[in-house]
Amino acid sequence: MGQNLQLSPATVAGAALESVDTPALLLDLNAFERNLDRMQSAADAAGVALRPHAKAHKTPAVALAQIARGAVGICCQKVSEALPFIAAGVQDIHISNQPALSASGAKTLLLARAAQHARMSVCVDDVRQIDALGAAAASEGSRIGVFVEIDIGQGRCGVPDAAGVLRLLERLAAHPQLKFRGLQAYHGGLQHLRAHDARRTQSQRAAERAGAVRIALENHGVRCPTVTGGGTGSVEFDLRSGVFTEVQPGSYAFMDRDYGDNAYDDRADALRFDHALFLATTVMSTAAGGHVVVDAGLKSLATDSGMPGIWQADALRYDQANDEHGIVTAKDDEDGAKSLPALGSRLHLVPGHCDPTFNLHDALIGFRGETVECFWPIAARGLSR
Amino acid sequence: MGQNLQLSPATVAGAALESVDTPALLLDLNAFERNLDRMQSAADAAGVALRPHAKAHKTPAVALAQIARGAVGICCQKVSEALPFIAAGVQDIHISNQPALSASGAKTLLLARAAQHARMSVCVDDVRQIDALGAAAASEGSRIGVFVEIDIGQGRCGVPDAAGVLRLLERLAAHPQLKFRGLQAYHGGLQHLRAHDARRTQSQRAAERAGAVRIALENHGVRCPTVTGGGTGSVEFDLRSGVFTEVQPGSYAFMDRDYGDNAYDDRADALRFDHALFLATTVMSTAAGGHVVVDAGLKSLATDSGMPGIWQADALRYDQANDEHGIVTAKDDEDGAKSLPALGSRLHLVPGHCDPTFNLHDALIGFRGETVECFWPIAARGLSR
Repeated sequence: MGQNLQLSPATVAGAALESVDTPALLLDLNAFERNLDRMQSAADAAGVALRPHAKAHKTPAVALAQIARGAVGICCQKVSEALPFIAAGVQDIHISNQPALSASGAKTLLLARAAQHARMSVCVDDVRQIDALGAAAASEGSRIGVFVEIDIGQGRCGVPDAAGVLRLLERLAAHPQLKFRGLQAYHGGLQHLRAHDARRTQSQRAAERAGAVRIALENHGVRCPTVTGGGTGSVEFDLRSGVFTEVQPGSYAFMDRDYGDNAYDDRADALRFDHALFLATTVMSTAAGGHVVVDAGLKSLATDSGMPGIWQADALRYDQANDEHGIVTAKDDEDGAKSLPALGSRLHLVPGHCDPTFNLHDALIGFRGETVECFWPIAARGLSR
Repeated sequence: MGQNLQLSPATVAGAALESVDTPALLLDLNAFERNLDRMQSAADAAGVALRPHAKAHKTPAVALAQIARGAVGICCQKVSEALPFIAAGVQDIHISNQPALSASGAKTLLLARAAQHARMSVCVDDVRQIDALGAAAASEGSRIGVFVEIDIGQGRCGVPDAAGVLRLLERLAAHPQLKFRGLQAYHGGLQHLRAHDARRTQSQRAAERAGAVRIALENHGVRCPTVTGGGTGSVEFDLRSGVFTEVQPGSYAFMDRDYGDNAYDDRADALRFDHALFLATTVMSTAAGGHVVVDAGLKSLATDSGMPGIWQADALRYDQANDEHGIVTAKDDEDGAKSLPALGSRLHLVPGHCDPTFNLHDALIGFRGETVECFWPIAARGLSR
């Protein structure tokens, strides 16, 4: 292989944004920094800890920027996902999920080893998870924080009530290297309720369910140091709930088409964020006439939450994603004509769902204005074990 | 970082299949080899060249196994995707797609450089693509094969008729380092028509459109050395069409839930393939009672073609995918009871769509019976430029 056949990076710092080879995942650093500042200020004003979710981005440089502004640490969704963040110096990581059990104990063992390098915690909703964690922590001589997940209405994981928590705490007492840190309470189903008022009402109801469990535990003499949860759609209400002591939003730093579709009442105190994440794509075929084809499809964009938007091009619509093709159509303009982009022209797409879109890419390209500023490895991409 | 915090591979050759850490992408080598043999025999019997599509798997070891059985080369969908295959020794690669144009000419330049290392061809449907390819081939001193894509009913890319082809061939004549190799003709829309008879009728109609263009070109004294196209859903008809001289199926080697849903008439000559690709997942939460939660979601499985099937577990259904959670429910059994899998038990999922699922993983784990046999890098994962 001639060395001239290496694939060069899509861009370099200082390059013109429009010269980035496509498809490329782009971060508008001005919008990103505004989003980080806005969320940290809201958390500080509410006296609630901010622990952003790193499953959204899988990018150590993003986590370090959040921690530099006051975040207490990060969440990850899998143990393997946490490793690149520990390597980058993140010192406090909560795995907001149950460790899958197996004969080899691979995941609980990896977590116990990670806990030798950073402050680690994890969720449980079954005594067998506690026993596996206790055995791993004992074998590695490390300490692991444990959060009991409670179901506050999503109906996915978690125990239903204080009695369920107490049963797990009894078993936890048998494992001196496991420390009870509090409750994990998340309701994914309400994050994308479109009406602001419905998100408010449902978020308050979910928080009240968590609050009721916390109070019932206190009545049994069990204190919950932390109640952690919430997401970008509910965080403005979680911060004011008086129940959550820590919030876990992830998408707020980037936003996506799905979160962008959430509606807001005309309230000064609504906590809103700006689109900062874009996928640069190029028009590769215009032969069909009625539509154009862009070079970004299922391999560059997650479509589980619908098709991407097209930034600052209201007359255009991304209609269909094939593996490496995207079909873009145009609405008629006033004169009943369609104006479609030219062959070789570029569009910035707003991904439908940011989390799985990050998981398709190896690098995040930060830009300011029209200039590339940084090239960040998405180091935890593909780490789902 | 202590070296004990490196993430170890999910398995090693010789290990028990059930010990593979999850989520993990698995290949049943017996079914895979049957699929490769069946397709190669059918192509040989029809006297049609087999050029399997590597966008389906992005795995050099798979391409080498296909070529060892008689495949003439492979297809890729992007130029960058081809590089790991060239590095692995694949000598003949067709980019079944138009190169996206840009001021930097990055893609056409990379293709011209690739053509110094392997026999390369690419599709065009616009004169500006021909001029960019000609300039790149001249600057790099390489030769590039050119296929004109014709639209045979999909309505995505390609020129509509022989007149459109002839206009491009006029321009091609101005670029001595570009060689006309023939027609690219693909209709993705009919690959998943469920009824066997509908696939037959529609595939024959699409092939006839390609044949009519080829004949019209011959009447203008233009010979098409190759007519290439087809996919796993249409290939049995493409092979008998008398039009295609080369076929490009990709999914046949693996199959997925979507292709598995295609129906077949009760005909001895139907060309069918076996499920060879699975995603191993572990039940991580059973607290909810009415369902269980597995550790494979959107980060491990593409859901653009629907939810995965569950292998050899007809009473179970994968209902919903979140980032790292999958919700699995059970039908009532005879006694009206539900039998859900236990915490820590394993399931083999049949991905809904194999191509974008491969693109989520870094390794393909080959097994035979109950034993891991090989660990193949998915070297072109994420290469969409």
